[in-house]
Amino acid sequence: MIRLDTRDPGFDAAFEALLDNPRGSAAAVDAAVAAIIARVRDAGDPALLDYTAQFDRWRPADAAALRVSEAEITAATASVPAALLDALDLAASRIAAFHRAQMPRDIEITDDAGLTLGMRWGALDAVGLYVPGGKASYPSSVLMNAIPARIAGVARIAICVPSPDGVLNPLVLAAAQRAGVTEIWRIGGAQAVAALAYGTESIAPVDRITGPGNAYVAEAKRQVFGRVGIDSIAGPSEVVIIADAANDPAHVAMDLLAQAEHDESAQSLLITTDAALADAVAGAVERALTTLPRAAIAGESWRRHGAIILVRDLVEAASLTNRLAPEHLQLMVAEPRALMAQIRHAGAVFLGRFCPEAVGDYVAGPNHVLPTGRTARFASGLSVHDFLKRTTWVSADEQALAAVGPAAVALARAEGLDAHAESVALRLAQTKT
Amino acid sequence: MIRLDTRDPGFDAAFEALLDNPRGSAAAVDAAVAAIIARVRDAGDPALLDYTAQFDRWRPADAAALRVSEAEITAATASVPAALLDALDLAASRIAAFHRAQMPRDIEITDDAGLTLGMRWGALDAVGLYVPGGKASYPSSVLMNAIPARIAGVARIAICVPSPDGVLNPLVLAAAQRAGVTEIWRIGGAQAVAALAYGTESIAPVDRITGPGNAYVAEAKRQVFGRVGIDSIAGPSEVVIIADAANDPAHVAMDLLAQAEHDESAQSLLITTDAALADAVAGAVERALTTLPRAAIAGESWRRHGAIILVRDLVEAASLTNRLAPEHLQLMVAEPRALMAQIRHAGAVFLGRFCPEAVGDYVAGPNHVLPTGRTARFASGLSVHDFLKRTTWVSADEQALAAVGPAAVALARAEGLDAHAESVALRLAQTKT
Repeated sequence: MIRLDTRDPGFDAAFEALLDNPRGSAAAVDAAVAAIIARVRDAGDPALLDYTAQFDRWRPADAAALRVSEAEITAATASVPAALLDALDLAASRIAAFHRAQMPRDIEITDDAGLTLGMRWGALDAVGLYVPGGKASYPSSVLMNAIPARIAGVARIAICVPSPDGVLNPLVLAAAQRAGVTEIWRIGGAQAVAALAYGTESIAPVDRITGPGNAYVAEAKRQVFGRVGIDSIAGPSEVVIIADAANDPAHVAMDLLAQAEHDESAQSLLITTDAALADAVAGAVERALTTLPRAAIAGESWRRHGAIILVRDLVEAASLTNRLAPEHLQLMVAEPRALMAQIRHAGAVFLGRFCPEAVGDYVAGPNHVLPTGRTARFASGLSVHDFLKRTTWVSADEQALAAVGPAAVALARAEGLDAHAESVALRLAQTKT
Repeated sequence: MIRLDTRDPGFDAAFEALLDNPRGSAAAVDAAVAAIIARVRDAGDPALLDYTAQFDRWRPADAAALRVSEAEITAATASVPAALLDALDLAASRIAAFHRAQMPRDIEITDDAGLTLGMRWGALDAVGLYVPGGKASYPSSVLMNAIPARIAGVARIAICVPSPDGVLNPLVLAAAQRAGVTEIWRIGGAQAVAALAYGTESIAPVDRITGPGNAYVAEAKRQVFGRVGIDSIAGPSEVVIIADAANDPAHVAMDLLAQAEHDESAQSLLITTDAALADAVAGAVERALTTLPRAAIAGESWRRHGAIILVRDLVEAASLTNRLAPEHLQLMVAEPRALMAQIRHAGAVFLGRFCPEAVGDYVAGPNHVLPTGRTARFASGLSVHDFLKRTTWVSADEQALAAVGPAAVALARAEGLDAHAESVALRLAQTKT
């Protein structure tokens, strides 16, 4: 953890270093991933069986065993405590409600020239959701990925989740069932991405692949991009907390650690106007690290990437935050709405002293799949928009064409595209006779 | 050109072959592009000067010469005939009007649990638009790329356009001025993409890069993806025309050739219910190819990739079209709106007998930058959405947290993320006392 103060002469350089720190390693897995994709594309199911044996340490009996059956899903759900299913249901219904509100409207305009112009939103036919396996297998991520697809109207929602040593998380299956997932495949890694993109004998190809994964999964998504759509490549997670003096340091400290416990590459930053709070939070973090189950991970993240930045005022806090473009932003100040108005770049914002990011991770409703690593400058969290596409349309009759056609002819000729020009001119000539 | 008939026994295999034809070559330029990007990233402006000398065959005097001056833009605009400037103005104002109608609305909801949830759209700070140079330098594409960015509210809009042998197209500069472009750089290729992504001494980095380009430009965009946002990688262009018997074959033929004249990899497909029209159009294409200036390119495209498909009825036509997911779709039938309702996948649709695609290329208003090569299954045309990003937000007070917090605690504990759970539980404990 580093402490910075905007009044210090070395602040700018230190802050630049914080911005430029890539965190996480960019493993060179391009060639390995290309080989896996080529093999799945060529060999199909048998390649999936081999890779599953190799990477997940269990060999499916046959291709049919790659798919999780209805009976398994039912049995898994039955094994989950009722209180936990209730929590999943609350989360699912709140996520569904928020994403329903996101649904965009079609447009249709008839203008003075007599053209009717429109834009229509339509759902993708089929999407694939990658769900990390093992320790990082989060039922909340299943809800966050699948529900927007279902709300958007996607008919076929396939999940791929690796099952290391053949073991699946029952809560993940229960979440998938509640989210409206239509197929669950127990495969992972680059081979799962390849199967979703190209299809195999068992798995029909999808149109878009979303969801986080390790370096192999990220590289595989990059390599199949174009063949299918993908979401942005997830990097290490981060939070910025802007807090004034009137906060409980224990709350702020735990919020910082909630981010830090994700993994050692996560980053937790506190920006505060109050030196006493800065000290108190630093102390509270150290105390909490003596009791938290994931203290080893959280402590490593905090030591390597954590920072407390003392600023003169909230204007300065907003300005630094816009340069950081954080994935998560908590505004623990007296007037959070006013401060939010100064924020241009952030994935998700949490307003007030009683709104920790963890609420948004599970039950608030907005998506927790968010742009990381400063990409909130140009990228957005997952939403129904990721599972919809737009078709624009134009309708013109003779009169409308007469109004705008001559300009099209002039521009087409200037661009040397005479067939373009003629396609309009032939009709204009007919209209005039 | 091939002729297919859905009644023929070999139809399915022939249609699958049509679907699987990648057209265009996937040149292996990865390593060359990686080297160019690395050099621009390390050396900055001097690398741009060298690459411009090497690839564009002229050596800028210094880095300042890379930027097109206001005086040059003014002089270029003055050299354009007034009628052409009027056509550009009509196109620009219509494109602006349609994209203004696209602007999405923010949402804000206070729900029964007492949480306020919102989603806010915001413009990117800076975008870079790649404009191909030389023969493929199209002023219409400048309008189509830059105007949506301006309407979205992007403050800084930088264009990169190569100037082979030092020559720029005056109409491109005039279009840029009208579109609200704030900087024009006379650089191209992978080096331009690298400069936009990483910045140099002269060129500030941008947040997103859009626009079509050759194989080097496409690969460079792929390699900088993540550092900045990119639009989809453009492939060869295509049109599907669904036409009934009541059409002038000369119109249909010229519309097919308007697509074919773009380049040899372009694809023009006619789907018709009428065998007589099929014959007449085939003949009209051959006749038009004897007079068109770009007959060599259009003829090559038509021979290699063109097809006329005879179908039983319009239901079949719609079904085949959904499998093709074409970039452009003309519906030259009696009831085009009814037919459009059956189309799920297309980039842009043109309705009626007097609405050739060329109207949409220039003046209709919707964007002409569209998903190619069957990617309309999951991708959309360029729009204001490409220059906006979403920030979601949540506001909760003690009561709201009490309503949803326990479910968050339960799910966080189930996922083994205790700091997440504690960040909520600490506040719930305080609320109860």
